[in-house]
Amino acid sequence: MDPALAALGEFGLIGLIRRQAARRSPGTLLGIGDDAAVVAIPESGKLLMTTDMLLEGVHFQRRWARHRDLGRKALAVNVSDIAAMGGSPLYALLGLGIPSSGIALDELKALLSGMEEEAATHGITLVGGDTCRSQGALVLSVTLVGTSASGSVLVRSGAKPGDSLWVTGVLGGSAAGLLALEMGFRPGVTWPAGIDKPAWLHETEEAAIQTAMAAHLTPAARVQAGQALVGCATAMIDISDGVASDVGHLCRESQVSARVLADRIPIHPGATVMAQLTGRNALDLASRGGEDYELLFTATTDPNPLLAEAVPDLLATRIGDMSGGEPIARLVQANGVVEPLLGGFDHLRGAA
Amino acid sequence: MDPALAALGEFGLIGLIRRQAARRSPGTLLGIGDDAAVVAIPESGKLLMTTDMLLEGVHFQRRWARHRDLGRKALAVNVSDIAAMGGSPLYALLGLGIPSSGIALDELKALLSGMEEEAATHGITLVGGDTCRSQGALVLSVTLVGTSASGSVLVRSGAKPGDSLWVTGVLGGSAAGLLALEMGFRPGVTWPAGIDKPAWLHETEEAAIQTAMAAHLTPAARVQAGQALVGCATAMIDISDGVASDVGHLCRESQVSARVLADRIPIHPGATVMAQLTGRNALDLASRGGEDYELLFTATTDPNPLLAEAVPDLLATRIGDMSGGEPIARLVQANGVVEPLLGGFDHLRGAA
Repeated sequence: MDPALAALGEFGLIGLIRRQAARRSPGTLLGIGDDAAVVAIPESGKLLMTTDMLLEGVHFQRRWARHRDLGRKALAVNVSDIAAMGGSPLYALLGLGIPSSGIALDELKALLSGMEEEAATHGITLVGGDTCRSQGALVLSVTLVGTSASGSVLVRSGAKPGDSLWVTGVLGGSAAGLLALEMGFRPGVTWPAGIDKPAWLHETEEAAIQTAMAAHLTPAARVQAGQALVGCATAMIDISDGVASDVGHLCRESQVSARVLADRIPIHPGATVMAQLTGRNALDLASRGGEDYELLFTATTDPNPLLAEAVPDLLATRIGDMSGGEPIARLVQANGVVEPLLGGFDHLRGAA
Repeated sequence: MDPALAALGEFGLIGLIRRQAARRSPGTLLGIGDDAAVVAIPESGKLLMTTDMLLEGVHFQRRWARHRDLGRKALAVNVSDIAAMGGSPLYALLGLGIPSSGIALDELKALLSGMEEEAATHGITLVGGDTCRSQGALVLSVTLVGTSASGSVLVRSGAKPGDSLWVTGVLGGSAAGLLALEMGFRPGVTWPAGIDKPAWLHETEEAAIQTAMAAHLTPAARVQAGQALVGCATAMIDISDGVASDVGHLCRESQVSARVLADRIPIHPGATVMAQLTGRNALDLASRGGEDYELLFTATTDPNPLLAEAVPDLLATRIGDMSGGEPIARLVQANGVVEPLLGGFDHLRGAA
């Protein structure tokens, strides 16, 4: 254990988190420091609850993820779940398993600062948590409670045959960013030492790799977009496992089938570059990579006018359609070949 | 990874948890299977939120804790936090980090069954969670949301000089149970093989050791007692770190001092036996052992009449008094010697 951390002790650390956690939600009646947090809930009385863990070695590597970014991401992936319901995030709890060796007090402080930054972006208040020792890996477990401002929530089961299928933004950036980090790229390091740079790679491609790494390290949850889409989407999910897997979830929960057009999937420019650099397929990164935290949804009308009002620089792309029949998803290749759309990451099986 | 678990896959496991999770709270609008759970909250609109993690190797050892008991305890320690506020538990989320090796599907099923049993005891509905692979240890992270039926909550900061200090039940059982497990005792195994049994140890002592192990492995949260005490307690906390540490929390949060009389601390009979067997001090097990999940509270009147109505077989014992001055706790030994009451477990420092 880092001597500064041991000197501070568990309750010193809790005190530090408590002093740092700003009260952003007016309903915070009792925050960190008691057996449970006490919060007031707006009159709608409809509460959204979600939890997502980030485990070292599984979800992140500390050798390339800065602690500040880890703190941001641990909260952001939960915010994305609330966004995918069309909701507003309000209160967070942090479970923190601190490895007996290998983390310094300053690194923990950076992690907590990152989480507070992400909380500030969305008006979230950190109201409680649990701090303990972990024998091996750093464990970050965040729970987020939110509400639905409109009283309506967007579930996975609302898609109907005839609905069109849409996705916000571009896909594959996170997977490409992870490939880049594995190759030795870092934020601000445009080319890794000791590797020959191909002739076709210029500043535009380098910039695309940088934005891909940012998409992986500090994803942005689509809260405003999710809220705007309550007005027109029929079903919604965030892309955490990969669009291939997440379309499957929509199909199963809604009991409809999906047809996804491969050449309509919007590919992150960094995915195109990293695919070329590593001999991977860009469409594969975009459809099976996961962790893009864009919104995948069905609708009966073009969502872009509504979306443009809420988030001026975000476009939704129509990537397919829903039909009846067996609840499975199919991919229509550019050459017209139709194949099952399978895959995405399965934690108990590994990558598909 | 266990072949049966890999064959089931992450989403198969989530499906299994979903089918097993009974809807006990009428406000469950949308349970497991979407991006977030959606629940309705009773009109009071005052929500209690808590999270507690159990990490393998830190909070439990799978070589002696049955998976069913682990599932019970992971939820029970959270229920205890809601109980310590005088609240009613309602909705739970489970974060589950599954070690890549060393856990079988049947063991996971037993763990989930144990959690459902504990949920059934308290009318809790498991509404969501997160399932992922863990590189090393089994990670159980539970979040529990509850409400205050009366609209009042019992916080740590309400104690005043002149209040008396009380504890429910007996202390040291959990610490004694852990010592017994370390010695080779097991539930149903009244004496470990290969160790000479002392002449003073008979059936009564063996039974006390069994109840101590049960206190450690499957603690019972004091929900009914907590709710009853809303009528008379001024401040309350559950005993998770040990009474020595938890009195300190009450003192700091209430800005009062405490005087605890050593010979008033109610000692679990198993703690007396295990202290004698291992050369430890029974009072030390009772005051610094932790994990008893009894309620420690301050009051201005005798709480036992109220308590007896709610939980007929549970007694509260007056163990001291609160005064003004520096917010620290002192222990008055049976011989009249007064010493600082320090200690309890600190996750970043180890045992005091």
